[in-house]
Amino acid sequence: MEPLNRIGTHIILDMGGIDFLLLDSMKDFVSFAEGTLWDFECNVLGTQYHKFEPQGFTAVFMLSESHLSIHTWPEKGIAACDIFTCGSVRTEQIANDIVKWFSPLSYNLKKLTR
Amino acid sequence: MEPLNRIGTHIILDMGGIDFLLLDSMKDFVSFAEGTLWDFECNVLGTQYHKFEPQGFTAVFMLSESHLSIHTWPEKGIAACDIFTCGSVRTEQIANDIVKWFSPLSYNLKKLTR
Repeated sequence: MEPLNRIGTHIILDMGGIDFLLLDSMKDFVSFAEGTLWDFECNVLGTQYHKFEPQGFTAVFMLSESHLSIHTWPEKGIAACDIFTCGSVRTEQIANDIVKWFSPLSYNLKKLTR
Repeated sequence: MEPLNRIGTHIILDMGGIDFLLLDSMKDFVSFAEGTLWDFECNVLGTQYHKFEPQGFTAVFMLSESHLSIHTWPEKGIAACDIFTCGSVRTEQIANDIVKWFSPLSYNLKKLTR
């Protein structure tokens, strides 16, 4: 395979041991994430989210710098988050803020250069 | 860190050496992807896409099984795709169909278990 051009940074953040209600509070997370993306000067092109019944949600923020997505499973205490950015976005700091938001008992953060 | 529960499969697919017009044809890709997701019995909860000027697009399909996203840079001949699924979705076959659609000169496919 020929080498590909470098596109950007992708953080894969899987968290466990999170409070049920926090993982079920979609609107609170969306407000928090919109604020965080604003703080880090990301340009949000669109947001879509879906609340599952009886619990859990998915939210996807389409950015001009790529995307941020989250899927939660309150019944398992887990959330899976992706932050894919190109340009000068401080991707790791956004990930840190998301970890602070959920206060997981454990998490696994992978940083990929794409 | 405590081990996390297994959530699903995430394929990271970066492709290079793709035809400019194919990377700029958002509507054609969205139609193709919707058909492919339908074929593989994915439940599309929502779709959002954005056409960049002068070229390139982003499309994100929110699935009840997680998400599919793509970002294209026609000027570089590249596309970055993510297919994150849980449950019994045939993630690799969706990735294969996307590779066939773009016919890249080279590509890099990473499969992560999350």
